[in-house]
Amino acid sequence: GEENSTAPSLGEEELDQLMAVADKAKLKAYSPYSNYRVGAALLASSGATYGGCNVENSSYGLTICAERTALFKAASSGERSFKGIVVTSDHSDEFIYPCGACRQVLSEFGNMDVYMMQPSGRIRRTTLEALIPFSFSKKILDDAEKQRLEETE
Amino acid sequence: GEENSTAPSLGEEELDQLMAVADKAKLKAYSPYSNYRVGAALLASSGATYGGCNVENSSYGLTICAERTALFKAASSGERSFKGIVVTSDHSDEFIYPCGACRQVLSEFGNMDVYMMQPSGRIRRTTLEALIPFSFSKKILDDAEKQRLEETE
Amino acid sequence: GEENSTAPSLGEEELDQLMAVADKAKLKAYSPYSNYRVGAALLASSGATYGGCNVENSSYGLTICAERTALFKAASSGERSFKGIVVTSDHSDEFIYPCGACRQVLSEFGNMDVYMMQPSGRIRRTTLEALIPFSFSKKILDDAEKQRLEETE
Amino acid sequence: GEENSTAPSLGEEELDQLMAVADKAKLKAYSPYSNYRVGAALLASSGATYGGCNVENSSYGLTICAERTALFKAASSGERSFKGIVVTSDHSDEFIYPCGACRQVLSEFGNMDVYMMQPSGRIRRTTLEALIPFSFSKKILDDAEKQRLEETE
Ligand SMILES: [Zn+2]
Ligand SMILES: [Zn+2]
Ligand SMILES: [Zn+2]
Ligand SMILES: [Zn+2]
Repeated sequence: GEENSTAPSLGEEELDQLMAVADKAKLKAYSPYSNYRVGAALLASSGATYGGCNVENSSYGLTICAERTALFKAASSGERSFKGIVVTSDHSDEFIYPCGACRQVLSEFGNMDVYMMQPSGRIRRTTLEALIPFSFSKKILDDAEKQRLEETE
Repeated sequence: GEENSTAPSLGEEELDQLMAVADKAKLKAYSPYSNYRVGAALLASSGATYGGCNVENSSYGLTICAERTALFKAASSGERSFKGIVVTSDHSDEFIYPCGACRQVLSEFGNMDVYMMQPSGRIRRTTLEALIPFSFSKKILDDAEKQRLEETE
Repeated sequence: GEENSTAPSLGEEELDQLMAVADKAKLKAYSPYSNYRVGAALLASSGATYGGCNVENSSYGLTICAERTALFKAASSGERSFKGIVVTSDHSDEFIYPCGACRQVLSEFGNMDVYMMQPSGRIRRTTLEALIPFSFSKKILDDAEKQRLEETE
Repeated sequence: GEENSTAPSLGEEELDQLMAVADKAKLKAYSPYSNYRVGAALLASSGATYGGCNVENSSYGLTICAERTALFKAASSGERSFKGIVVTSDHSDEFIYPCGACRQVLSEFGNMDVYMMQPSGRIRRTTLEALIPFSFSKKILDDAEKQRLEETE
């Protein structure tokens, strides 16, 4: 199943607040190319909440997703550990999961709960580890550097 | 488990060839910032093979991974369907899995076998679907566009 | 020369404040891979100021620069027009200019002043238009779409 | 003016060949989201030519442009120095200039001629240095690393 019992679950109140922040963040989306608005809300271990939306660019490849906007906001406020994220769109029939790039950027800071929310408020829960198993991480680069230094000694 | 029995397995000969291409592609890596060389080889359904390496940039965010180099090469040759990819690095103790961005870019074109190879030739197999479950896809954007057009009629 | 007289200049007080915000934002940088900290501060036409730092990723290509962090913060707060940006690093001998990706993302929202600041507080001014002449823009995609629709009628 | 006399100009025959390669590369574009096809052709100092097209992704931010596809192809073939690039689209009324991300990625390998071509074959020439003045480069990171090491000794 997609649920991972080792991840911390958010409390009901925390989740309600995150859902409200994600809903509101969606309204700020800059999406003239896709016409597709996405909102996200990220809860840091500090207890602070960070909203984000997609910000598109005429050079499509420089577009950023809602989840990463929220993460960059939080990281640039000094946050380095997170409890959960809520993602929502205007799409009423689908649970929108984070794209692979967002999964990777979030996983830089460890595991967390991931909630997909439909406009109606219907939600589904999973964990980041379930969405990006065997993730490429800082540990791998550190190990490789150590190995490289040992071999060149 | 990480193995997905519905994915097509490569034949032994195909896999041997891919491993050789990935190994050779690694030698072309442009990685002056990470000093970390990665090679990849992608087998298209057409039977053609495309090698790739990481190409880094002084603005780290414009760096591209080996897997995506191989995919962009193949896609710009007209390929739109793939059987498998092999990824390798100089890291002898680890199986290096594709990052989230590469998983997303590969999944644009459907499922495929994914092989992680150590320099010794030791390999591990999984599938793209196992590495990026519930992937964000073209179908979702198409459905949303349809919904949006219906609502604005 | 690099100065463009048509761009609005910031007032001395505005610039002093931006410089302080950029300096402080730099301290939050997450840069374990490059060991290179960058800070930015963006002044919106609304008068609000947004700080940003670089946030790196083990997959280098998912790293974001300080300037874009500040822009994504501002855009996700609803800002769509900007007066200027200050960029700074720990590099005492160089004026660090924004990378091409940041120039492109900033230019989505029009021209603005761009200030490069050394740790000593020494600054240099230019404009975004001077840094990314003939920029690829929304207007081009809009025109192309119009042309495409006319041709398929 | 946009022309930079210090850059090497391509010969007429070289340019004709590049234009043909760019035109043909455009036909392979994977652009289901923008419906905007772009082709590029890159001439390496070795004399070899590399074509590229845009390859889009449902997560817009993972889209790659034609110019970078060509560059990644070339770099992964071992090329590290370039004479010029031609960029073309289906847009008959505009000269399409490279986006900021492509300017940055190309500039990693030094200056080169940049040609914008309309479908009719009409072209305009400039140089990479003119399109990304004061570019952020490897030299800056190297200098900063040197400074950092001196200060921590
Ligand atoms: Zn995303
Ligand atoms: Zn990757
Ligand atoms: Zn940048
Ligand atoms: Zn581009």
